[in-house]
Amino acid sequence: MTLDEARALDAADPLAPMRERFALPEGVIYLDGNSLGPLPVGTRAAMTDVVERQWGERLIRSWNEGWIDAPTRIGAKIAALIGAAAHEVIVGDSTSANLFKALVAALRIDPGRGVVLSETGNFPTDLHVAEGAVACVPGASLRAVPRGEVAAAIGADVAVLMLTHVHYKTAERWDMAALTAAAHAAGAVVVWDLSHSGGAVEIDLSGAGADLAVGCTYKYLNGGPGAPAYLYAAERWQERLSSPLSGWMGHAEPFAFADAYAPAPGMKRWLAGTPPMLAMAALEAGVDLWAEVDRAAVWRKSAALWDIMAAAGAAAGLPCVTPADPAARGSHISFRVPHAFELTQALIARGVIGDFRAPDVLRLGLTPLYLSHEDVWRAGELLREIIADETWRDPRYAERLAVT
Amino acid sequence: MTLDEARALDAADPLAPMRERFALPEGVIYLDGNSLGPLPVGTRAAMTDVVERQWGERLIRSWNEGWIDAPTRIGAKIAALIGAAAHEVIVGDSTSANLFKALVAALRIDPGRGVVLSETGNFPTDLHVAEGAVACVPGASLRAVPRGEVAAAIGADVAVLMLTHVHYKTAERWDMAALTAAAHAAGAVVVWDLSHSGGAVEIDLSGAGADLAVGCTYKYLNGGPGAPAYLYAAERWQERLSSPLSGWMGHAEPFAFADAYAPAPGMKRWLAGTPPMLAMAALEAGVDLWAEVDRAAVWRKSAALWDIMAAAGAAAGLPCVTPADPAARGSHISFRVPHAFELTQALIARGVIGDFRAPDVLRLGLTPLYLSHEDVWRAGELLREIIADETWRDPRYAERLAVT
Repeated sequence: MTLDEARALDAADPLAPMRERFALPEGVIYLDGNSLGPLPVGTRAAMTDVVERQWGERLIRSWNEGWIDAPTRIGAKIAALIGAAAHEVIVGDSTSANLFKALVAALRIDPGRGVVLSETGNFPTDLHVAEGAVACVPGASLRAVPRGEVAAAIGADVAVLMLTHVHYKTAERWDMAALTAAAHAAGAVVVWDLSHSGGAVEIDLSGAGADLAVGCTYKYLNGGPGAPAYLYAAERWQERLSSPLSGWMGHAEPFAFADAYAPAPGMKRWLAGTPPMLAMAALEAGVDLWAEVDRAAVWRKSAALWDIMAAAGAAAGLPCVTPADPAARGSHISFRVPHAFELTQALIARGVIGDFRAPDVLRLGLTPLYLSHEDVWRAGELLREIIADETWRDPRYAERLAVT
Repeated sequence: MTLDEARALDAADPLAPMRERFALPEGVIYLDGNSLGPLPVGTRAAMTDVVERQWGERLIRSWNEGWIDAPTRIGAKIAALIGAAAHEVIVGDSTSANLFKALVAALRIDPGRGVVLSETGNFPTDLHVAEGAVACVPGASLRAVPRGEVAAAIGADVAVLMLTHVHYKTAERWDMAALTAAAHAAGAVVVWDLSHSGGAVEIDLSGAGADLAVGCTYKYLNGGPGAPAYLYAAERWQERLSSPLSGWMGHAEPFAFADAYAPAPGMKRWLAGTPPMLAMAALEAGVDLWAEVDRAAVWRKSAALWDIMAAAGAAAGLPCVTPADPAARGSHISFRVPHAFELTQALIARGVIGDFRAPDVLRLGLTPLYLSHEDVWRAGELLREIIADETWRDPRYAERLAVT
């Protein structure tokens, strides 16, 4: 592809106006929105309002003026992005905490099954949290097998299949409907981690017959660093499962101040402590941007951006570890390369921010809301130039660079 | 006390200049800082910096420019307020989540003991979370007894004594050193909930020989609505206990992306997910204010404000449920009164914001950083006036008021 061809794609891009809704720094091509989404322009006003008016002026009264319903209100907005019903998603705590809740609850469904099945090399917090969760349920254990062996390992002892929909490193995407059906056929439930797929690819939890899911909001949903995560429970499970983190905000009547815990109906039972309202306000502003876009156009553009970067990587001779089939991947691309750390630093030094994932992966996020085809083309050209210049392979390269 | 006498106390108050550090609305006397502390003026700039520069400009690079250490950095600042060593406190998650971690970890110390002992009428989330925690440890159970029977109930089956240092409703304060010693003598550990005492009264966790503690930061620490909570573990326990919420941020090497969980040394093992940096920035600004004040002056002024309001309540004939001995209470005062809800609404309608706690308590927070003696005197006068006016006892009163 030539620069003119990339520009022609931008001229025809229905998402091009969205670029102005983000406050990206000058001189930077940001290919790390899959790790931390950038600041939406509208978030500035949202933060001023929550700090100055809601907290500063209205004080405690704000709990009755929109705060107390924020977890379900924002959850409903996220539901629209992941193919869930509005009343099936709630926002709060971290992805790790929500995963813990979902796993412990799912492990308690059938005491005759105790295995959490997952893949080796899953995102670390998934496997770490699963270790913690199985230690909380008698007879439970974690079994991680290589990706290619997962489907065959869904045996009669498996209580929960825990998969990350899009792999954080390779961008490989599981077939959600197929794996969910396979798990159900074997009598297991599935907990999907949508952290790298929510806002990155089309998701249809309802259509897949999904049980439980969790996801991160500070990547493709642009909710801010460490923004509250979400949890999904299919309606059919909502009254059958309870959270092990049974805090007062998940009580049926939190302000009755009763001694005995009684879970709230619906999704509110998954709340634990007081919602973090400053973080929630930023998250809502990020999520609201999604209401303005044609999501089908986002997925199409993601594939187009991917093709541009894949071509650049191929031209540079870098092995791509992300599947070529758009239906089998997320919205980032990863190359396996020696000296990947130094390569990442070299790109950053020249204004292209991607990231390194140990031990040998260069990972580049392709986020259609604020990246142009030209951005990705320029980043690809830079990648080719650096690869052509052997100095980046020098292990002292990173030390010599002033990382900007 | 007369208005002139209250003003004389203000004229001699070394904390009086602190009032200007808070952005309180005009025409409001805010006696609910024990529920949600008001906005510190300095928080505005902190939020602008974290949103515009740290997130907007520096993006992902901010993780290496202060974000990743925020949980321990802010923890160290809070440690100074609660009599802990700097390396014994970490910030993250909610009070409920931290309490869950602390309880499960403490229940695992000695499999021969399984009882979490607490008091009936404790703050609901403490009892609710304890229910969730004991369900995660085989053989564990929750036993709640009336306050007066707690000390005698610390038997050989008790693993954990879980107490809220200052009671959320009555402001009664436990003798931390005495109860900790009694628990230790019986072979139990203590988990203290400092939510209503941190920043409200002098706390000496080290001096009391405390084991574990959790606390809330959006009350007396003015960290913002739903701000991240803190967790304390005495140094002697740090390498012996692990968090059941074993997320990646608590891993010894989070960016090695290993499959197996290995807890970080020190307090970082209590982290789970990614720290919520917008909320953390607000919290740090609130906590930083405490570095500027003479804490002994805060505790003295708390007692003086209490005396003013207690006298007003007595003059109005309201039974006070808070202990008269300053060493036996927190920094709020509560009156038991029929129609307490209507009384609270009547006060709010006239600019004095306190709160109602079911079924019959009017609760007023006395927070020395931003309340003057005159503020509390005026609120007391208003209380007397309303009590003298019988209309507030009309159950329809609240409906007729436009709550401002």
